[in-house]
This record gives sequence, structure tokens and C-alpha cells, in this order.
Amino acid sequence: MSSISIIGTGNMARTIGARAVAGGNTVEVMGRDRSKAADLAKTLGGGATTGEWGSAPAGDIVILALLYDGVVPVVSQYGDALAGKVLVDISNPFNSTFDGLAHRKETSIAQEVARVAPAGARVVKAFNTVFRHVLEKGRPDVFLAGDDAQAKASVEAFIQSLGLRPLDVGDLKMAHWLEGAGVVTVGLANHGVGNLDFALGITELPVRAGG
Amino acid sequence: MSSISIIGTGNMARTIGARAVAGGNTVEVMGRDRSKAADLAKTLGGGATTGEWGSAPAGDIVILALLYDGVVPVVSQYGDALAGKVLVDISNPFNSTFDGLAHRKETSIAQEVARVAPAGARVVKAFNTVFRHVLEKGRPDVFLAGDDAQAKASVEAFIQSLGLRPLDVGDLKMAHWLEGAGVVTVGLANHGVGNLDFALGITELPVRAGG
Repeated sequence: MSSISIIGTGNMARTIGARAVAGGNTVEVMGRDRSKAADLAKTLGGGATTGEWGSAPAGDIVILALLYDGVVPVVSQYGDALAGKVLVDISNPFNSTFDGLAHRKETSIAQEVARVAPAGARVVKAFNTVFRHVLEKGRPDVFLAGDDAQAKASVEAFIQSLGLRPLDVGDLKMAHWLEGAGVVTVGLANHGVGNLDFALGITELPVRAGG
Repeated sequence: MSSISIIGTGNMARTIGARAVAGGNTVEVMGRDRSKAADLAKTLGGGATTGEWGSAPAGDIVILALLYDGVVPVVSQYGDALAGKVLVDISNPFNSTFDGLAHRKETSIAQEVARVAPAGARVVKAFNTVFRHVLEKGRPDVFLAGDDAQAKASVEAFIQSLGLRPLDVGDLKMAHWLEGAGVVTVGLANHGVGNLDFALGITELPVRAGG
């Protein structure tokens, strides 16, 4: 099992935290508002602890459960406190109409995190195509991307501990296209599916073959 | 059932053509090399016919089964012969390393087709996330995008005639992100899945719920 720290106390922090505790992982919660972090840790149970905002996280894997425009500033603020950690960016930098990305350049929040992260920190993009309530109730596939094989392996093990299937799509620059897959997911919710009760994933040939 | 014309005589033309005939659609094949088109029509059977390259297609839906860099030039060459048609771009404009798109701008082959298409033609992006042999052997989900609701409805009906599930992701500018989903699909084949025997799709909450 993994030792994880969650930076953030919002809905996604709560949902990932709950699944992480259920999967037998050690969980620490860090929030700007320490009392909110303590409340969430208490809600999560399973021995979840509270860390101090800006200090070195206890976990080897640090989930950045923040709104997309807060991710890079917070990683910058933490600075060397994140040295040696695996940083997991789960954000969706949607534009204001939810049909494209906020950055016009071919980049991603994950790649921008890698630019400001301290030496030895390794960034993995994951979870961004999964709607929160699907993560709560279902067993969605979880896509991930990153440059460091060992970091990806540790995130994959964490994803598996949640009872979910990790699907590696390649190196960190693929995070741009995973963010695009987040855009596709919202497009499906608004058009072809018409609701939020689904997840992007894969189906393998033996499973649905028969056409 | 639909009346379709396929421009192209390659593997994807053959695979879509075979499924189209099996689905009870009327199929016409158009190739630069008329004899290749005739051979394919004969192979497809089901009354498939051969059209003359550059002349007005017989089908209401025109599948552009061409390599990505040929799509815009061929649509330009056909010009007014495509007036009133629903043009289906299935291409993947991969870069040379298959981990990004050939165009650096936030566009898509489908959007570029729309720029050169004649008045009354409507463009739909579809099928690009599906590996050919999966379309041959399996029942993959088929994502689509386009600006014209009627055109999308006709393509959806065609996709359903193939026994497949159409999934509308939104308007034509979403074609950029569907092309990105093509990049993700290749990334999965090379990393997280490790083979080509799968398709990107969706799983709905009641189906896999249980976490």
C-alpha cells in the first residue's frame, strides 16, 4: 500500500481520500485552512492525519487536489518541501465554455508543474478524465502520463489499491492530450451521453467482440 | 439504411465498406485508380458500385478514407461535386513520432476540410479513434463531432447500422480533441495496454459500478 498526502480539502480531495483509506493506504491531508484539513482527516478516518500547509508532506505520493489555476502556484510555494516526491496532477484546465483548454499553447498543467517542481520531484498526470461522483460510486479506468517509470509504477500501484485499472498513455507531454480527453469527456456529458454517469475507458476486443 | 460513397481504396475503405454492406447500406467506391475501386466494390459485394474519381458521389454520406495529408487536397479537387454531401473525415494527422498531431495549431483535418468544402457540404469527424482491425472484428464505440445536427444524425444512423454505438462529443472544433484522443489511443497501445486489441470508449456507471 502507499503513503499519500493530499494537498487540498475540496470534493476531489475527499473522494480520493475516502477511496485511498478504503484501499488501505496511509493518508495525510494538507489544507491552507488547517481546521478544514483536520475535519477532512477526521471524516476520512482510517488513521488519516493532518499536515501543515507548505511543509514537507509525509506521503511519498502527493495528490494535488486543487483547482487547475492553483496547482502551479501551490507547487511553487511548497518548493523544496516537495523534493523527492511523486506529484500527481489531477486537474482539468477547461476554458470558460468547457470545450477547450485554458492554455492555448500545447502544454498541460502537469508539464507546467514539472517546470516549477524541485529537483527529484517527478510529476504524473492522472485521474483527470474521471468525474468525481464516478470515482465515488464506480470503477472507472484511470489514465496516466509521466516521464519517470518508477513514479508511474508507484501511482499505478496506488490506483490499483483503489480497485481501479491504471492505463499508462506515455510520457509527460501526453498530459496535454489527457487534458484534451477531459474536454472530450465533458463533451460527451453534454452531447452523446447526456449525463455524468460514465467514464472514458477502454474495451478490449475479447470483451465486446461480436460485430 | 444509408447511401454512402467511400473515397479511397485502402484498408480503412475496405473495412468500413465491408461493415457498411453487412449493415444493409448502399455503397459506392471511388478511387483515383478506377480498377482498384472496381476490385474493392467487387470484393465488398452487396451491390457495391464504382464511381468516377472527382465526379459527384452517389451517396449522401461521403467517407473520406484517405491518408490525412490527402484529405484536404482531395476535397478541394472534388470541389462542387461534394455540394450538399455529409463529409466524414476519419483521419489521424499523427506527427512522425505518433505522440502528437502534425498540425501545431489548434485545428483538425475536419475543420480544414470544412474550410475548403463547397456550400451545403457539412463535415463530421468520426471513426478516428478506432483501429482498423478492431472495426473489423469488434464493436467499438465511435466518437463523432460536427456543427450540423442533421448531418450528425445521419452519420449516427449509419454508425448504428454497423452495430456500433455513436457518441457525439460536440461541435466541429471538438474534432481537434478527437484527433488528440487518437494520439491517446496510440499511446495506450504503446504503453498501458501494450497491444492494439482495444478501443477507446465509455463505460456507464450501472455497468461497472461496484467500487
